[in-house]
Amino acid sequence: MPFFPLLLAVPVRLHIAMTKTTEKTFCPEFRTDELSSEKIYIKGSLYPIEVGMRSLKLSRTYLCNGQEFASLPLYDTSGPYSDYSLKINPEKGLPPIRNSWNFPRKVQMGSAVTQMHFARKGIITPEMEYVAIRENQQLEGWITSFSRGQVKVEPITPEFVRKEIAEGRAIIPANINHPELEPMIIGRNFRVKINSNIGNSALGSSIDEEVEKAVWSCRWGADTVMDLSTGSNIHETRQWILRNSPVPIGTVPMYQALEKAGGKAEDLTWELYRETLIEQAEQGVDYFTIHAGILLEHLPYAEKRLTGIVSRGGSIMAKWCKFHKTENFLYTHFEEICEILQAYDIAVSLGDALRPGSILDANDEAQFGELKVLGKLTELAWRYDVQVMIEGPGHVPLHLIEENMQKQLEYCHEAPFYTLGPLITDIAAGYDHINSAIGGAIIASYGCSMLCYVTPKEHLGLPDRNDVREGVIAHKVAAHGADLAKGSPVAWLRDELMSRARYAFAWEDQFNLSLDPEKTRSVHSQSMALSGHTEKNPDFCTMCGPDFCSMKKSKEAATVI
Amino acid sequence: MPFFPLLLAVPVRLHIAMTKTTEKTFCPEFRTDELSSEKIYIKGSLYPIEVGMRSLKLSRTYLCNGQEFASLPLYDTSGPYSDYSLKINPEKGLPPIRNSWNFPRKVQMGSAVTQMHFARKGIITPEMEYVAIRENQQLEGWITSFSRGQVKVEPITPEFVRKEIAEGRAIIPANINHPELEPMIIGRNFRVKINSNIGNSALGSSIDEEVEKAVWSCRWGADTVMDLSTGSNIHETRQWILRNSPVPIGTVPMYQALEKAGGKAEDLTWELYRETLIEQAEQGVDYFTIHAGILLEHLPYAEKRLTGIVSRGGSIMAKWCKFHKTENFLYTHFEEICEILQAYDIAVSLGDALRPGSILDANDEAQFGELKVLGKLTELAWRYDVQVMIEGPGHVPLHLIEENMQKQLEYCHEAPFYTLGPLITDIAAGYDHINSAIGGAIIASYGCSMLCYVTPKEHLGLPDRNDVREGVIAHKVAAHGADLAKGSPVAWLRDELMSRARYAFAWEDQFNLSLDPEKTRSVHSQSMALSGHTEKNPDFCTMCGPDFCSMKKSKEAATVI
Repeated sequence: MPFFPLLLAVPVRLHIAMTKTTEKTFCPEFRTDELSSEKIYIKGSLYPIEVGMRSLKLSRTYLCNGQEFASLPLYDTSGPYSDYSLKINPEKGLPPIRNSWNFPRKVQMGSAVTQMHFARKGIITPEMEYVAIRENQQLEGWITSFSRGQVKVEPITPEFVRKEIAEGRAIIPANINHPELEPMIIGRNFRVKINSNIGNSALGSSIDEEVEKAVWSCRWGADTVMDLSTGSNIHETRQWILRNSPVPIGTVPMYQALEKAGGKAEDLTWELYRETLIEQAEQGVDYFTIHAGILLEHLPYAEKRLTGIVSRGGSIMAKWCKFHKTENFLYTHFEEICEILQAYDIAVSLGDALRPGSILDANDEAQFGELKVLGKLTELAWRYDVQVMIEGPGHVPLHLIEENMQKQLEYCHEAPFYTLGPLITDIAAGYDHINSAIGGAIIASYGCSMLCYVTPKEHLGLPDRNDVREGVIAHKVAAHGADLAKGSPVAWLRDELMSRARYAFAWEDQFNLSLDPEKTRSVHSQSMALSGHTEKNPDFCTMCGPDFCSMKKSKEAATVI
Repeated sequence: MPFFPLLLAVPVRLHIAMTKTTEKTFCPEFRTDELSSEKIYIKGSLYPIEVGMRSLKLSRTYLCNGQEFASLPLYDTSGPYSDYSLKINPEKGLPPIRNSWNFPRKVQMGSAVTQMHFARKGIITPEMEYVAIRENQQLEGWITSFSRGQVKVEPITPEFVRKEIAEGRAIIPANINHPELEPMIIGRNFRVKINSNIGNSALGSSIDEEVEKAVWSCRWGADTVMDLSTGSNIHETRQWILRNSPVPIGTVPMYQALEKAGGKAEDLTWELYRETLIEQAEQGVDYFTIHAGILLEHLPYAEKRLTGIVSRGGSIMAKWCKFHKTENFLYTHFEEICEILQAYDIAVSLGDALRPGSILDANDEAQFGELKVLGKLTELAWRYDVQVMIEGPGHVPLHLIEENMQKQLEYCHEAPFYTLGPLITDIAAGYDHINSAIGGAIIASYGCSMLCYVTPKEHLGLPDRNDVREGVIAHKVAAHGADLAKGSPVAWLRDELMSRARYAFAWEDQFNLSLDPEKTRSVHSQSMALSGHTEKNPDFCTMCGPDFCSMKKSKEAATVI
């Protein structure tokens, strides 16, 4: 067992001059909603937790399956940013809510503090109770009464969460050093999640832009954020992001390690990488992407491919392995890595270094060969009570998506799958967020737990604010579509309320129930203004005009006796 | 048999003062491509036809499966607009190419001139040869050599086209009075097509805007265009569009009939409707949406629904039926309708008046009850040699999409399916083009032949130029993804070339091979400029920067011995 220092869970505060960018863009979409939604906090019964949600006030009472709804609690990823009673100072970061939950969280040599550790011991943690309350969205009554065909769904209990984590089917990424975190769960028996990537490259983008992007992603609904910075100021960027992030933050530690190695893959060492892991663990990173599954034996398969290796971490490791004619040090040192992850409760996201970068390379020996290794590493990590998810493709034509999901479940023992796309074609540059949303909806309906977003800039350049928003919402459409396909009662309720509001021409409710209230409100009002209409609650829209509205006609027809 | 006048196929010219809008926006995306693509015409061997395509010159020679490609012929919907040797005067309309094909096309009482009529007699028409050449994209060699697994695909022959049409599995919508048309085929053994809707409502939008939108749609890749105008100047708008459209034009004649009835559904009569059909038939409309399948017996089911009837034509007919307590006159007069369609070779698109407008209403008795009637009407139309396609939903959750396709094939005897979306959720307003592209890709991979686009304005207002472009491209991603899933060799070639160009950092080829060269080119160059990079052919993009490009690293790794 390697030397491993005793470290203390002291959240590090940042000492960097702040600009006012975060205040400037403070929750614009909720601001316009101020009157129709409010932040609510649901208290736990086991622990002194308060689960933040956003309660949407509806303009009228809707009757759905015998239940009345005058408001709807929404799953809310925006954290304290949508609580107007709080004054948030980005220099100080968000309130460290987890510190008051009175649960032992301390880095100790050889002593696991992971959610999986407690789950396997039969212990429900505050984080488990938190996510159980969060997933139900205070709609227990609705969930119990809802049925689709013969399937009956029950509200999620803390005990159910515990069991899913104990069996490795779900994870709660929550570094003990990220007390600002609002816990969330990733697993196929829960709401489908989405991840947003941010990060400066050597080109463009500044630190405050990156923090703003992280917060910006959460506002639009990203469930986790990966900081993929590769340029300068990696450490400071991450510190800013962590202290201001209510969602789990993931990283690829290899990127920073490579910077330390002067950008030369062959100069990387295990010691350099390990030092980087600990540095980031101390800061509070919640999950690490680690490309430990790519082995020397896979490289000949990758070299036969149309587009080789398109994972950044994977291509770095491939170069290192070939230069040193040595096996991947992330693989050979994987147990030492697990010891570190275990001490901070960092989840490992086993990277798919050999994900296909073109549809022609999909489902080949390289991809599935690595996936089998990821399955072995999953077993190993579980021995250390380390929570695991598996990263997935990439470019996969539509008819091969199902096989990806099946093989992942089989090889990786049902650990959660976390996919990039898949993109169903190579030619959709400029529209790859749509390309990815198509593949994402399909694989999530088969059981993928989290979708990594893709923006319209994929394959072309670094995304800006608007690209992030477009990318997040595109994948929220996909994730929500999969939730509906899987029969989630809370997902079905939102659609039913939306359609009732639509049929009632309750425009404000339609805007507020949509995934992007700001956009729907402005599009509708601009269309009305352009056509010279000034009605406040029109019973038509400019698409069909007042005389051709099918819903209006349909209602008129129904009233003819 | 009703009175039916002998009409002559004389294309009507338009006499309306023209603005210069069409010239102003003349093929912007091809303009920037001028040097890398050119219009080519492939001669037929059976008829004096010349099939227009766009040949894309590549910057280098790519080797794909043993064949060299220095250029790629592309399926091209932009018609003469992308031929710079032609001077197009919108006032005169496009050249009436079909007039020179020396094939009998004349309206005659009781004498069918439909593609199905000839196909069943074993006669290959110029239109059939045209679409066969068009579908192959001059890639016969590639198609023959391509194989996916055990499946071997053959190039499409005129005889194969004839057989598909004879058996009702495919249609070529081509009114004898639309000589400007470049024929295209809709059927599940051909390239998946997309339709773009345009049309003014009483609110907003002018005639020249509508013509511009029609041409604009074709430029971005729409295979057919539906003119859904409901406001004033319906006749003139349609005339403008037809004379300047290289793609089939569809309409919903009910909209104009309702205008003639003063906007009152109950004042509609069969005579008014019939007069409208003939008026539009004379102008050259290629397919009519006719809501003949909604019957009195279905209405109680519709009234139990969450969102009733959301088809405009359907809601009008429902109102008429209930008011008069009489069966749908489109149903009772369907054989007379077929006689008219037969005389002009107008395809009928059997409208799904009862398509679900919310996911809760999907796959219900109303929807499938009407679908069965559409199957009966299909048989009836086929007795008149009238080409038929079937319109489909609508709002359908992801897991119920497959059943829709299966039932359509079963009830409607494999007539082509033409779907709106489906939208997999009700809450994606503002992003419904993405919502629809997800459902569209899935249903097309199951065998849907044509996708009706949905724009970002769906449920909110009338789409503008940019919405049309976004809507068209989103559905081209979906259609192309389905072509790949179905194993189309020409679709696979384009993706392979794109990925080879990507791996070679051949940016110009990447732009030109993408679905929207104008957008990819500008996004990439703006990103480079923003980050201060001036390289002309950089071997990286600003997403990862020069030091973290996985493709570069992957190639470097491959060269390490």
